Amino acid sequence: MTDLLTESVFTWGAPPMKYGPGAVDEIGFDVSRLGVRRVLVLTDPRIAATGLAARVGEALKAAGVDHALYDQVHCEPTDDSLRAAVAAATELAGAEDFDGFVAVGGGSVIDTAKAVNLLSTSGGDLMDYVNKPVGGGQAPRKPTKPLIAVPTTAGTGSESTPVCVLDILGLKVKSGISHPSLRPALAVVDPLVTLSLPAAVTAASGMDIVCHALESYTARPYTSFLRHAAEARVAYNGSNPVSDTWAEKSLALIARSFRRAVLVGTDLGARSDMMLAATFAGMGFGNAGVHIPHACAYPIAGMVRDYRPAGYDAEEAMVPHGQSVSLTAPAAFRFTFPTDPERHVRAASLLSGGAPTDAAPADRLPEALVALMRDIGIPSGVAAVGFGSDDVDALVEGTLKQQRLLNVAPREVTAEDLAGIFRSSLENW
Amino acid sequence: MTDLLTESVFTWGAPPMKYGPGAVDEIGFDVSRLGVRRVLVLTDPRIAATGLAARVGEALKAAGVDHALYDQVHCEPTDDSLRAAVAAATELAGAEDFDGFVAVGGGSVIDTAKAVNLLSTSGGDLMDYVNKPVGGGQAPRKPTKPLIAVPTTAGTGSESTPVCVLDILGLKVKSGISHPSLRPALAVVDPLVTLSLPAAVTAASGMDIVCHALESYTARPYTSFLRHAAEARVAYNGSNPVSDTWAEKSLALIARSFRRAVLVGTDLGARSDMMLAATFAGMGFGNAGVHIPHACAYPIAGMVRDYRPAGYDAEEAMVPHGQSVSLTAPAAFRFTFPTDPERHVRAASLLSGGAPTDAAPADRLPEALVALMRDIGIPSGVAAVGFGSDDVDALVEGTLKQQRLLNVAPREVTAEDLAGIFRSSLENW
Repeated sequence: MTDLLTESVFTWGAPPMKYGPGAVDEIGFDVSRLGVRRVLVLTDPRIAATGLAARVGEALKAAGVDHALYDQVHCEPTDDSLRAAVAAATELAGAEDFDGFVAVGGGSVIDTAKAVNLLSTSGGDLMDYVNKPVGGGQAPRKPTKPLIAVPTTAGTGSESTPVCVLDILGLKVKSGISHPSLRPALAVVDPLVTLSLPAAVTAASGMDIVCHALESYTARPYTSFLRHAAEARVAYNGSNPVSDTWAEKSLALIARSFRRAVLVGTDLGARSDMMLAATFAGMGFGNAGVHIPHACAYPIAGMVRDYRPAGYDAEEAMVPHGQSVSLTAPAAFRFTFPTDPERHVRAASLLSGGAPTDAAPADRLPEALVALMRDIGIPSGVAAVGFGSDDVDALVEGTLKQQRLLNVAPREVTAEDLAGIFRSSLENW
Repeated sequence: MTDLLTESVFTWGAPPMKYGPGAVDEIGFDVSRLGVRRVLVLTDPRIAATGLAARVGEALKAAGVDHALYDQVHCEPTDDSLRAAVAAATELAGAEDFDGFVAVGGGSVIDTAKAVNLLSTSGGDLMDYVNKPVGGGQAPRKPTKPLIAVPTTAGTGSESTPVCVLDILGLKVKSGISHPSLRPALAVVDPLVTLSLPAAVTAASGMDIVCHALESYTARPYTSFLRHAAEARVAYNGSNPVSDTWAEKSLALIARSFRRAVLVGTDLGARSDMMLAATFAGMGFGNAGVHIPHACAYPIAGMVRDYRPAGYDAEEAMVPHGQSVSLTAPAAFRFTFPTDPERHVRAASLLSGGAPTDAAPADRLPEALVALMRDIGIPSGVAAVGFGSDDVDALVEGTLKQQRLLNVAPREVTAEDLAGIFRSSLENW
């Protein structure tokens, strides 16, 4: 088969999962079953204030697992914040290394734990492992230790993926570290921990799920890449029958419960669906990849001026990740529609719960997205988070740096195409 | 949450997968990436004769991985055959232990490799690890080594599961060993290796997939069990949203391609769908469980007299696993129908590719199964493989020993219920 010009093979992986209300109370048992006796628990100040990290600590103690707590994870990790976390972990470890990690938080916490795990086992500098061409793209030098991920938002799906995303401050660019050994050893997914999330956070995090599902579902099919050598296979395969399954199921759950989770935050059924939707989408996009909306999100977040989202206690200007990924999604999926009309129509139908529509096929997915975003209070477009026509060139330039993502788009994306997408996205309604 | 009377938590796991035509040619890279340098390749005489195990050996050698070959795996493993495989592995290893295993074959080969992996790492006797009450039900004493599974039939899904099934000859009972550490480290799923399977083997193996999907889909819901303590969680959770997803997708692939795979064995599209269907069903039932049809299959296979299936080179009387699981399926699903009519109707619709039907809801799944079984040449019932009304009591007695499976049935199953199922299954058409 080695003489095939195009790809015939894809890879897929996901961590074992324990799911359900009350799952987090069993974490002492699960950590000790992995042979771990001394862990570092990582969290951020907001989660620490809820008492959840302390509860996890108590459960570990009850199971005879020794632990230390690092509760200063930075929201949206940077190279500086990751180095600080690694230094703190080294200091907290003292003479004896930790033999495992527990991440209690959203994507920022789980990604920080991945980086701390990698660097405290393999050594070297952070940039050695960051994806090329930004970093050295090296593989870990030693096996990582078990990382148990306890997501506290229904959003990033980082508990399922082998990727850590970070801002490189000096270069003003967002990049990542991707390697199968970064994948958590176990995902403990407990919808009870999301009951108190504010509506604005539920809305933005949920749009991240929507984009993961839609982008992986519409990603370039794995069979359309040139054939890879075994050693040159990439983390992002393109869409495939396994990621399609997860994406479809995730969209159906979103259709059923996303609006309700925002409007009635204490509805455990809706929260449970959203938690599953996030994990399912992670199991899909973590293997298939994401493309244009995520690539556009990087400069939208990175170039923020003074936007402060309602419902977030942001100490500095920021565009929440789930907002930044969704603002260009309607235009992006109008742009990708011709590559597979049937698939876009099906995605629209799933996202709208099969609602009947008279819209032209190309309009259906953008319209379903806009209807959802309006209902849950997402900003109306790139203009609403502080950008104007004059910023389009800079936004395009920042997006073009994300070639690893744009490579998974189902058609070639030029600077002009991106400028069109950003201009159409200034106001989605 | 510990005061909840019923279960709210389920667990799920599946191995990483490399899928597609040509995947097996990359096995040298994949084995060495797992840090394995010296492996035992296990296969059976039939596969060895096709040259596939030798091809795997060449690929390992080219990647600098040392290997030995054990090609005497017994079809339908027994305690004796597993002990023989363990002894052979010890002898082939010599002074230095193998640091990994590659199983090239159907469920028998993959299950044998699981047992060899367990016993050559943990020591002790086979019966120490066999599920209670037949065996000691002990957990492995040491970590297992990486096992890479290369399935050569689209059927058992053993490449996805943490279970090894065996006949205990002295006790005339079938049992198993279940532990997460038995799960393969990687499944290499290559539909090209199934192109030459005879139609009868394709048909029987495929019915195993159908039963995995239907039994896990109709299994008792995880939420209907009494709440487990963390340390008392079982491998078979009951049906849950993750196993449902895999089962539904598997049934859709079966509907699209099973008949074609039997009738036109060289159709790579159909073979690819069946290979995915088998792996998907394994990812589902390996966590949810199977129930009545699989429980009934154990005595049907164990009590065989002189049935020799057409299309198999059987040296002794035997009922292929895929035949034995399907013969009681129509009656079993008529019996389970009242527990969840909507789910049974949906399963029938998926299995029949959405074909319109005037049948009463309770008849739809039995009718869809019978239509499929007739089309692909499965025996017409328990009578066609050599049993009569006089055997029903003994078959019921044998089935009742499979409490681990019957426990996952969606309603209580009495001896009288089973007698009714067997009597209805003497002739399905």
